Amino acid sequence: MKKITNNCLLDDIKVSTTYCGIKKTSNNEDDLLLIEFENNTAIAGVFTQSLTSSASVNKCKINLSSSKEPIVKAILVNSGNANAFTGKLGEATVQKILNYLSKKLNCNINQIYTASTGVIGEQLDPSQIVNSLKSMIPSNTPDWFQAANAIRTTDTFPKVSKRNCNIDGVNIEIVGIAKGSGMIAPNMSTMLSFIFTNANLTSEILQKLLTSSNDKSFNSITVDSDTSTSDTVLLAATRKANHKPIKKFTDSRLNEFKKSLCELMLDLAKKIVKDGEGASKFITIKVTGAASKKSAKIIAFSIANSPLVKTAIAGEDANWGRIIMAIGKSGQKADRDKIQIYIGDELVTENGMVNTNYSELRATEHLKETNIYLTIDVGVGKSCSTVYTCDLTHRYIEINADYRS
Amino acid sequence: MKKITNNCLLDDIKVSTTYCGIKKTSNNEDDLLLIEFENNTAIAGVFTQSLTSSASVNKCKINLSSSKEPIVKAILVNSGNANAFTGKLGEATVQKILNYLSKKLNCNINQIYTASTGVIGEQLDPSQIVNSLKSMIPSNTPDWFQAANAIRTTDTFPKVSKRNCNIDGVNIEIVGIAKGSGMIAPNMSTMLSFIFTNANLTSEILQKLLTSSNDKSFNSITVDSDTSTSDTVLLAATRKANHKPIKKFTDSRLNEFKKSLCELMLDLAKKIVKDGEGASKFITIKVTGAASKKSAKIIAFSIANSPLVKTAIAGEDANWGRIIMAIGKSGQKADRDKIQIYIGDELVTENGMVNTNYSELRATEHLKETNIYLTIDVGVGKSCSTVYTCDLTHRYIEINADYRS
Repeated sequence: MKKITNNCLLDDIKVSTTYCGIKKTSNNEDDLLLIEFENNTAIAGVFTQSLTSSASVNKCKINLSSSKEPIVKAILVNSGNANAFTGKLGEATVQKILNYLSKKLNCNINQIYTASTGVIGEQLDPSQIVNSLKSMIPSNTPDWFQAANAIRTTDTFPKVSKRNCNIDGVNIEIVGIAKGSGMIAPNMSTMLSFIFTNANLTSEILQKLLTSSNDKSFNSITVDSDTSTSDTVLLAATRKANHKPIKKFTDSRLNEFKKSLCELMLDLAKKIVKDGEGASKFITIKVTGAASKKSAKIIAFSIANSPLVKTAIAGEDANWGRIIMAIGKSGQKADRDKIQIYIGDELVTENGMVNTNYSELRATEHLKETNIYLTIDVGVGKSCSTVYTCDLTHRYIEINADYRS
Repeated sequence: MKKITNNCLLDDIKVSTTYCGIKKTSNNEDDLLLIEFENNTAIAGVFTQSLTSSASVNKCKINLSSSKEPIVKAILVNSGNANAFTGKLGEATVQKILNYLSKKLNCNINQIYTASTGVIGEQLDPSQIVNSLKSMIPSNTPDWFQAANAIRTTDTFPKVSKRNCNIDGVNIEIVGIAKGSGMIAPNMSTMLSFIFTNANLTSEILQKLLTSSNDKSFNSITVDSDTSTSDTVLLAATRKANHKPIKKFTDSRLNEFKKSLCELMLDLAKKIVKDGEGASKFITIKVTGAASKKSAKIIAFSIANSPLVKTAIAGEDANWGRIIMAIGKSGQKADRDKIQIYIGDELVTENGMVNTNYSELRATEHLKETNIYLTIDVGVGKSCSTVYTCDLTHRYIEINADYRS
């Protein structure tokens, strides 16, 4: 394999940020991000499954389905207001912004993708954004940390991830930014991610790449089981890399890119969990021996979303009965007498009861660490799934109940 | 309608309680309850759907299916140990206890119903229970508060409910006891309820009565979305009331009984929510205008189980965007532009956005009360469902994380 160096292969992407007055902060932190692309940039997206999805999400979906080869000219993101559940007025707001920006950038409105994150149910003022757009000047080289910073809400740090790989011997760069602190905290948070590459790939292949990687990354994390109205992940390819065209998702020349994209998305997803509201521990839950991949994931999420499991881990309490409970309530196939639970490397259960050599001391030692590993074999099949979550602490209650948000 | 007086129509039920050493308490509080019935007492039951259900739950199910007309001679309940996930040994424990008690009471072992609540995964010592059974002396008249007290774990008060009604002009009494503080807190809690009546009803009719009332009561509450391994509700009828036999569940002479049973079970269910771990507010969530009853219930539970909705209410914050989010994530049919949300009497949303006359002040005033009413019409059909829950507070984290349980 060739040695890959970082050649700033995405310098033709223009990034600009500003404070336009939507986000209520003490020091006028950036709340508007504009990313501009040269012609011919392909795009793919995955979105929240929520039935009360935001105006921006709905418009992005229309954009993607409006053409067989959708093209992106710009991505515009504001933080501080989600423009969700804002009715026809909210849709008109998006339209006003798109009308202005499409004229300015001399493109079709279907080539502009918007995302909004923040309070649900409050009207977003389009003039604040349009006025700011008039004076925004894109930087010569994209500053991805600055970009990630502008889309933060309750996030405590900007989330950026980079990977380099090659396709057909040609250097490929992938850069992604993300925000999110609860899977949702609808007042001031939601999950957004934007990923960029110079690979020369069609939007059809991009979409397949994004969907398959998404399942193992963003769709494998949970902070509080609450699903946002605004979750958006977009993947844009400038197609500047001069490798030969790739026509099939299954082309083996894509293998390295697939691996890198998946790694990058998982890295961003893990950063969101680490920055989960009130999180003090990062928890990896691997379920093996399940009847199907879907079943393994349902069991893993049943454990990851259980407030009793999450509080036990916050309390560094090896209360493994709560894991048994969460397996049981998942409704998925499991053989009670074959279930094996590991806390770290400590085997807790065997033969339908506690393992005779189980040491609660050793299990508790592991729970004192910051990175917690729970591994559960449910003894009925060969499928597995891994999900990531954080613990449930006083700080979560403080963030979401104690302060008027 | 005749005037109904309480004639202690259940005095032929014998209740005894004792401390047998299973529950770890400072002052040797009762942890064993024995209820004895005269011959011919019919029984029905509903149980946890958990796939890792306890040894007692599994044995109760066998009892009920072992005969077309199952009879109960005794119900034996211990608190402090759930005897769940205790393997073959746990099953042998139940068997040992049943062997002793069936000889003592001169009955078939299939006529004894047991329930255990407390820590999951620890072996229950049958000798502690058998030794106590030897010396337990039933009282002449049943003290239901004493009975409810003996099955408490983290509950802060005993839960008893009584109703009187009539069937065919004959006085009928219904008494129920329950315990539960989280839907589950597997270390020291689970949901149990035992209900008694003198009605002369077959177990087949009892089962139908229990199942239909259960759906509107115990199956309509949630504290923390975690489902117990041990949930058990039993309904026993001494059949001492001398009304004419009732052969059909649809017999109109049962109407008053149905209503009273449902009221009693709902009363017990609400008591569990009021005693929910850390609860500071009792929340009634009514969903109307849904596509089906099932759909209405899924939406109501999606709201009731959302940690963000629960923390918002704990913080007396009229953050209705979180309710929109919870409707959206339920995956159920809802017409965004017809959704109406009421906080108390305050109409929050209309036409897919905030109601123009909405007063956050009035909504917040309502949230300062102890009993919170959320009413949501999703605008697609005529079905409705009501569920009950409590808020999510610091105290919940304290109970489940701060102390080694």
